[in-house]
Amino acid sequence: MINVGVFGYGTVGSGVVEVLTKNAEVIKKNVGDDVKVKAILDLREFPGDPFEKLVVHEVEEIVNDPEIDIVCETMGGATYAYKYTKMALEAGKSVCTSNKELVALHGPELIALAKAHNCSYKFEASTGGGIPIIRALESSVTADHILSVVGIVNGTTNYMLTKMTYEGSDFDEVLKEAQALGYAELHPEADIEGHDAARKIAILASVVCGKTVDFAKVPTEGITNITARDIKYADKLNMKIKLLAKYEDRPTGAFALVAPYLVKKGNPLYNVDDVYNAILVRGNMLDDAMFMGRGAGKLPTASAVCGDVVECAKSNGKHIPCNWVDEEINLPGYKASKKVFFVRVGAELKQDAIDAFDGEVTEVDAGYFDEYAFMTTELSEADFASKKAKMGTCLNYLRVEK
Amino acid sequence: MINVGVFGYGTVGSGVVEVLTKNAEVIKKNVGDDVKVKAILDLREFPGDPFEKLVVHEVEEIVNDPEIDIVCETMGGATYAYKYTKMALEAGKSVCTSNKELVALHGPELIALAKAHNCSYKFEASTGGGIPIIRALESSVTADHILSVVGIVNGTTNYMLTKMTYEGSDFDEVLKEAQALGYAELHPEADIEGHDAARKIAILASVVCGKTVDFAKVPTEGITNITARDIKYADKLNMKIKLLAKYEDRPTGAFALVAPYLVKKGNPLYNVDDVYNAILVRGNMLDDAMFMGRGAGKLPTASAVCGDVVECAKSNGKHIPCNWVDEEINLPGYKASKKVFFVRVGAELKQDAIDAFDGEVTEVDAGYFDEYAFMTTELSEADFASKKAKMGTCLNYLRVEK
Repeated sequence: MINVGVFGYGTVGSGVVEVLTKNAEVIKKNVGDDVKVKAILDLREFPGDPFEKLVVHEVEEIVNDPEIDIVCETMGGATYAYKYTKMALEAGKSVCTSNKELVALHGPELIALAKAHNCSYKFEASTGGGIPIIRALESSVTADHILSVVGIVNGTTNYMLTKMTYEGSDFDEVLKEAQALGYAELHPEADIEGHDAARKIAILASVVCGKTVDFAKVPTEGITNITARDIKYADKLNMKIKLLAKYEDRPTGAFALVAPYLVKKGNPLYNVDDVYNAILVRGNMLDDAMFMGRGAGKLPTASAVCGDVVECAKSNGKHIPCNWVDEEINLPGYKASKKVFFVRVGAELKQDAIDAFDGEVTEVDAGYFDEYAFMTTELSEADFASKKAKMGTCLNYLRVEK
Repeated sequence: MINVGVFGYGTVGSGVVEVLTKNAEVIKKNVGDDVKVKAILDLREFPGDPFEKLVVHEVEEIVNDPEIDIVCETMGGATYAYKYTKMALEAGKSVCTSNKELVALHGPELIALAKAHNCSYKFEASTGGGIPIIRALESSVTADHILSVVGIVNGTTNYMLTKMTYEGSDFDEVLKEAQALGYAELHPEADIEGHDAARKIAILASVVCGKTVDFAKVPTEGITNITARDIKYADKLNMKIKLLAKYEDRPTGAFALVAPYLVKKGNPLYNVDDVYNAILVRGNMLDDAMFMGRGAGKLPTASAVCGDVVECAKSNGKHIPCNWVDEEINLPGYKASKKVFFVRVGAELKQDAIDAFDGEVTEVDAGYFDEYAFMTTELSEADFASKKAKMGTCLNYLRVEK
């Protein structure tokens, strides 16, 4: 019998309890032993809940329980979750988490701590919800030099951009709708400003590099500037606007970036709509492989946490190795990385814009006579920034993904 | 140092040698040791080839070499490949294969043999080429009751159907083009009649069930009956025709099936075009996850073989468990499984058709006055077969995937 403790009985935590209970039979088959929830840590009481008797209020009741083998950390946050995770690992209990904030901040330290205490720290659910992307990078695409990892990793913004695309509605309107439906939070900054996506791409890039990519250093632009007009231009260009989180290893240097992109029809990410997430991995031998699924939601995320529980349970008290060491890696290639840019300026700035870009522009016409929109040639970020500064104020700009 | 032997220096075999050589550094990082090709078994000579000195002609030179730890079986076929794989496993060498024929015929026997000799039999590359679907089913989606696995797993037919869809061309014409481009073989029966897809879904279903699903018992229909008119109807219906390979676990019984389907826009498989493969996995908690990539090709397939080599190399001479045991499982649910069917009959049979289906039909009009086409209500396979027999000859029929 493998006993599991759960930290935090919120959305994902209750999902974990549901998966472990409802799927007990299939999990037993896969593990070769029963896996059972023994205790749930939460500050609240849950009168009437079928598992109310398992709820405890002191973390010691789980970390000091010698019968508990594995802990699922589904509290979120990086203060108590950090402290409690360390306590669990120091007690030799493997921890499976959905907490991207904690993984992005302290992942490799916790992996090393797990190793020192002969247990494991697993974080499949921290990125891409139910999509098994961490395990794919760690265990499957292992004979490839990974050239890029490009993802739609934030369901809220993808839902909003999809709505804007198909309904022509404006940003504020769609945000209100998304909040009403529970797809966006009341304080949606982490999603719409791209910080959630930055944390996730930092985790994926760290797994690829084996060293920590600091999410705070990932250049990050959100979708708050996207208007119905941008969407109209995208449609005209046979493209869609998607918030992409990228890691790319280019000859001019590796870089990570979160920004709204124009994605061409034909790119597999073009078709990833609504709350779906997808991650496109390019290897030098594999070519493209895409992993798509529900990037959030109670049960898909809980399914990923419980997949980690199964792996820990099967590992039989041995540390499951992870290549990510506690050392920072700087990705220096952002400024030199080249892209095509789409730019909109007020009609009065047309000649200034053409001059700033040395005439190397291709006009895009979506029927708005009060502005001038164009595609640049392939430019480095540094070049683009200086040309943009020369040009004066622009209405908006977007990078183009092939 | 881990030494690798390669059985068969054809397309995939030479790809394996290329991956292990060109990506030696990243593979070393992932394994923690050098991995090197020591010998290549092939009947032919390869004068001028950079690896010609590694070529041997007797299998004993590999299976009796105590320095060789892992064998990549990229010969194909099920006679010599079977014999040689057994010899390698009996000598305690793990075998990584791309040979779907052999895996579908003798997979669990070879897994058991590997276990008995403390080594492993790995077959990620046997299904979906570079897409890591076997490992996803075995190691990631392990806390879910898997409700269905639906795939586009044959690149040749998907390329042909895509061509027919976008160019309106007829089957024979597209087949000739595909043959000229090397996407279809001179003897294309295994692809176009669905047998290749049947082998692959049998392997996937066996991994899910943990017991052998006999590919020869999978009801299999190919795409040879698909005409430009079928494509026209599909377009009219906002659907595409795709050759689907399915495993479904329904309340009326589990079943496997290979057949051309009408796939609705909105289904993630709708957008999987050209030579791409994709597999959609539905779990009772995970919901849908899709895995997409190059289902064939020298380097993507070799990348998958080498991912298995990395896993074997890391396992340090221990057997990597696989749940698939050597026992057949019958999937009894085919006849009771319900679908909506699309049917075309000659115009003169219109009333017979309506009567046979008790009037429960919805006409589909694509502008062909010499025929009558319709959708049925949801019917079991058994019901459909008896109604179809009652109706007389039909021009064609297709199942509908939501």
